[in-house]
Amino acid sequence: MAYEQPHVDVAALTALLDGRYADVRELVRTNLVKYAGVLEEQETLSTDEFRDRVRDLVVELAATGQTGMGFPEEYGGGGDIGASIAAFETLAFGDLSVLVKVGVQFGLFGGAILQLGTKRHHDAYLADLVTGRLMGCFAMTETGHGSNVQALGTTATYDAGAGEFVIHTPDDSARKDYIGNAGRHADVAVVFAQLEIGGESEGVHAFVVPLRRDGAVLPGVGIEDDGPKMGLNGVDNGRIWFDHVRVPREALLDRFASVSEGGEYSSPIESRNRRFFTMLGTLVQGRVCVGGASINAAKVALTIALRYAVRRRQFEATGPDEEQLLLDYGMHQRRLLPLLARTYALHFAQEVVASDLHTVFSGDVDDERARRALESRAAGTKALGTWHGTRTIQECREACGGAGYLAVNRFAALKADTDVFTTFEGDNHVLLQLVAKGLLTDYAGEFEDMDQLGMARFVAGLAVETVVERTSVHKLLERLRDVLPGGDEWDQEAGLLDPNYQLAMYRFREEHMIAGVARRLKRGIDDGMNPGEVFSRVQDHVIGAARAHVERLVLEAFVDKLAGLEDGDQKVALGLLCDLHALHGLEQDRAWFMEHGRMPSARAKAITREVADLCRKLRPFAVDLADAFGVPDEMLRSPDLVG
Amino acid sequence: MAYEQPHVDVAALTALLDGRYADVRELVRTNLVKYAGVLEEQETLSTDEFRDRVRDLVVELAATGQTGMGFPEEYGGGGDIGASIAAFETLAFGDLSVLVKVGVQFGLFGGAILQLGTKRHHDAYLADLVTGRLMGCFAMTETGHGSNVQALGTTATYDAGAGEFVIHTPDDSARKDYIGNAGRHADVAVVFAQLEIGGESEGVHAFVVPLRRDGAVLPGVGIEDDGPKMGLNGVDNGRIWFDHVRVPREALLDRFASVSEGGEYSSPIESRNRRFFTMLGTLVQGRVCVGGASINAAKVALTIALRYAVRRRQFEATGPDEEQLLLDYGMHQRRLLPLLARTYALHFAQEVVASDLHTVFSGDVDDERARRALESRAAGTKALGTWHGTRTIQECREACGGAGYLAVNRFAALKADTDVFTTFEGDNHVLLQLVAKGLLTDYAGEFEDMDQLGMARFVAGLAVETVVERTSVHKLLERLRDVLPGGDEWDQEAGLLDPNYQLAMYRFREEHMIAGVARRLKRGIDDGMNPGEVFSRVQDHVIGAARAHVERLVLEAFVDKLAGLEDGDQKVALGLLCDLHALHGLEQDRAWFMEHGRMPSARAKAITREVADLCRKLRPFAVDLADAFGVPDEMLRSPDLVG
Repeated sequence: MAYEQPHVDVAALTALLDGRYADVRELVRTNLVKYAGVLEEQETLSTDEFRDRVRDLVVELAATGQTGMGFPEEYGGGGDIGASIAAFETLAFGDLSVLVKVGVQFGLFGGAILQLGTKRHHDAYLADLVTGRLMGCFAMTETGHGSNVQALGTTATYDAGAGEFVIHTPDDSARKDYIGNAGRHADVAVVFAQLEIGGESEGVHAFVVPLRRDGAVLPGVGIEDDGPKMGLNGVDNGRIWFDHVRVPREALLDRFASVSEGGEYSSPIESRNRRFFTMLGTLVQGRVCVGGASINAAKVALTIALRYAVRRRQFEATGPDEEQLLLDYGMHQRRLLPLLARTYALHFAQEVVASDLHTVFSGDVDDERARRALESRAAGTKALGTWHGTRTIQECREACGGAGYLAVNRFAALKADTDVFTTFEGDNHVLLQLVAKGLLTDYAGEFEDMDQLGMARFVAGLAVETVVERTSVHKLLERLRDVLPGGDEWDQEAGLLDPNYQLAMYRFREEHMIAGVARRLKRGIDDGMNPGEVFSRVQDHVIGAARAHVERLVLEAFVDKLAGLEDGDQKVALGLLCDLHALHGLEQDRAWFMEHGRMPSARAKAITREVADLCRKLRPFAVDLADAFGVPDEMLRSPDLVG
Repeated sequence: MAYEQPHVDVAALTALLDGRYADVRELVRTNLVKYAGVLEEQETLSTDEFRDRVRDLVVELAATGQTGMGFPEEYGGGGDIGASIAAFETLAFGDLSVLVKVGVQFGLFGGAILQLGTKRHHDAYLADLVTGRLMGCFAMTETGHGSNVQALGTTATYDAGAGEFVIHTPDDSARKDYIGNAGRHADVAVVFAQLEIGGESEGVHAFVVPLRRDGAVLPGVGIEDDGPKMGLNGVDNGRIWFDHVRVPREALLDRFASVSEGGEYSSPIESRNRRFFTMLGTLVQGRVCVGGASINAAKVALTIALRYAVRRRQFEATGPDEEQLLLDYGMHQRRLLPLLARTYALHFAQEVVASDLHTVFSGDVDDERARRALESRAAGTKALGTWHGTRTIQECREACGGAGYLAVNRFAALKADTDVFTTFEGDNHVLLQLVAKGLLTDYAGEFEDMDQLGMARFVAGLAVETVVERTSVHKLLERLRDVLPGGDEWDQEAGLLDPNYQLAMYRFREEHMIAGVARRLKRGIDDGMNPGEVFSRVQDHVIGAARAHVERLVLEAFVDKLAGLEDGDQKVALGLLCDLHALHGLEQDRAWFMEHGRMPSARAKAITREVADLCRKLRPFAVDLADAFGVPDEMLRSPDLVG
């Protein structure tokens, strides 16, 4: 059947993308437009004025209900976790200081009270924090400890005589650092500290600690502004330290552990490690939110760059009198359209992780395995989504030339504000190590009791030999063979546009890389090498395996979405995007497939040709596909680029 | 012979890197330290205050002689073009608004007066502009025309009655835009405009046009500030438009064309195209400067990230009590050390292009071929150097985690300020097309009369068929076979660390890609396809070929440098860097080599292993290699990262 260019109904495609929470997303869009002035205020106000403006705006948004959707209705919330993710993601079309301030107040601070606290804490804080009357911060990260939370230095020593915890910062490296909302606005902090009772350490726990009253910092508390940042200057990040600050016994957020008046420690979870990771696991929402926000920030950049590319002419190409549109250049298509396709893929992958989050956190079933799967998927999607955001915004800015450099054209703020997303809520490399660890321990058949943060500790610690021993390399290799649906030549005969072919290739890479990592770890340990050295040598392979895993999940999400659509133009258009995403991914990693005997060079070249062909097919309606993201015109703010 | 870790003498390596102009570089370093306060002022002053501060600083630097080294001694300059490049590059260790302001005033404005003007203009302007008493700008780019200078819209109509040119901006798209120094400080502009005499157009020429007197904008001139930018906010970029502004006949910079009182046009260069490109060719210094500056900005980022990576510990890996240093992680080595090696490679490549520039512009011989080779090399090195700068700074920032996001730690400014380097002084993609055109026309044996800016016009215009016809595909394929020094298997038997092997691979790729481009262009035209369409389809191949060419030049520069060194530890250390650079380049493009039958997959895997091995060998003295760049400590400005 000859190819016929599909007609894209932009509104219908927006409805598909918006999905279940279309009304929530519309509310947020309306609010974004209403407060569009903040995009300019970011430039024109002084830092303090802008921070206060952002705080006020967050409170005003709270009044519309959009920021409290994840909290129980009895405290003024919306009682729908999925809705709260949708609202947050959509907010990322606008100023990102507002987004991050919302994330800190309702996601991190509010989320900690909700997830780690019990009814006492909910009653005391939720209603006020949902309206923004009570501003709070989330004091986990320390100057000397970034991604390694278990090693943090702040202490909370129980004084049984007084029935109080004494919160203390022993040295500068134990200062809480980069804490959003701390510099200026937070009244109270959820502080993560090493709990000590009678000289015994019980590990990291969270405490509610007042910071300010009527705007004045309380005695024993030190706060220092983190100063100007690359971006997000509407958020007041700061450093906090405590000099023997006393809080009542009730300040311990005691859902997973409590301390009796007499100083007896008890917890429903016996293993200390498992308790720690259960606590952290409840905070997974932050990662889901950051990943989704990055994907949506990429949509803003793409909308600007694509609209510009069909307006701007450069050099005569088709005739002496008319310069050619940028998007008619093959190179320009190559730069932007695979990013557009990947944005769609990540959008649908994000839809899956957000829906999983909703299911796990709304359900009464405490399914450990589903939680672990969610945490892994959230970590992986966050890493891929944030890297994609950084890369897409950079490419789009360059594709808009000098005008893209002027602050009036949105890119300056977009770039600077999103840049930290790759390192906050968990450094992307550390997150991918976490994903890899899950994959390996899945095979090994045990994981509940294991350190989740940091492949380094995991591989290097005592656990490594056990795990690697139990990881049956044979079993892995068998699974590998099962991945490809037919004989050895199957993949070379399948059509490039067959989703089964594409998925089989992604799966093969994933399984092969995981098996390879397990083998290399085992061999290193068997050879008597220092575990740190073993890990150091295998680390890029570990991260590559995790990435391959998440890439497969992303492609699957897109293919699944397509499979559920009715035949028609929309499906054809999305099918082209899905093919472009899948094949561009194979093209980028074709060296690996060739090295592993799964892609003859003629086929690799065919894939490259197909990618170019898909770009040409998408070019006529590429702007429609971007417009379907539904970024409000007011949020583009690029007078020189899109008019 | 067993490998023995070399001892790096940092001072001796700095001397090698500084080369011929070590004293000039030392002067600039001294000045950088003296005015180090500007790194803070960039944050603390208001925009207007900071711009004035930068202007004052530029004038103070001028008094030390460092900014005027490229001008003739009789006008207060240093009479040494190579010295002026060395000074500019070194200045890139510091605040980049200062750098760009210097580039605008002395490179673009001063360079135009010097290169396009004659004695009359030199006498009138040089002495004053060398001291900074006269501030000027370079008004070429227009809102509607970025890289396509021949199409610009500003007109200069000769009024023979009055003996004056009338400078006029016909519409908004013809406004001069993004012009540095225009927003606030420039007294005068060199304006590029279409010269019209008696209704005849003579093409683009340059005119000296006054903009301000005593700070007030002159009648008929409109100036608008470009507003806040992503970075470089110490430079006052602006838009300029002219409403029938009259300037005397002598305002034409008349080295390459003059207009008699009666309105007779004459030029020593007959062809209009050639005249245009000869004019532009004299301005090549700007590209050489921007490329060198980007490479040096990358050095600052690497110095910070590497020093941080041997201070910061993260996660226990070797024992339960001590966290491992970041640089001991294989992934961290992989992220930073190939960038370090490439920075060295680009440094030496830049040394060659700067030296070529000095030779061509200092010599009396007007060797057309040398000029074209210089222009091509300058364009290519600028593209690779600026992309490398952007990528390195980004990777280093991420490798420094959250602290890298705080403005106090230098990355914010480094990132924001350098971001535009990839698009100014010629968009990198357009520049690589220029390189490709040179390569193709070299084969075709004629180029002098051809449009140099924009492969698009070149391929699409009438010239294309002629060129492609004359491009002997046979000849190309023969050359290709000659590239490999031995039989068909030679490259598979050679040692990976043999520079002849590495260079042969780079050469093979280059020749093969150029031949492929020529073939594809010819086939498209032969098939009767629209030339614009042909070009669009081949464009990424065109750019790939140019990139392959420049990569070969870069590797050759490094290999040549090594060959000239005496045996010893320094040569061993640089040899490791050169191998890492060469093999990492092959690794990254191994798909291409596999597709073209020049790299069996076992060899590809061996290269990957060798890259990891080289990283491990370099790790113990990686910081020494960065320290040898000689970035003054005061320029690192990262208290949280390097203390």
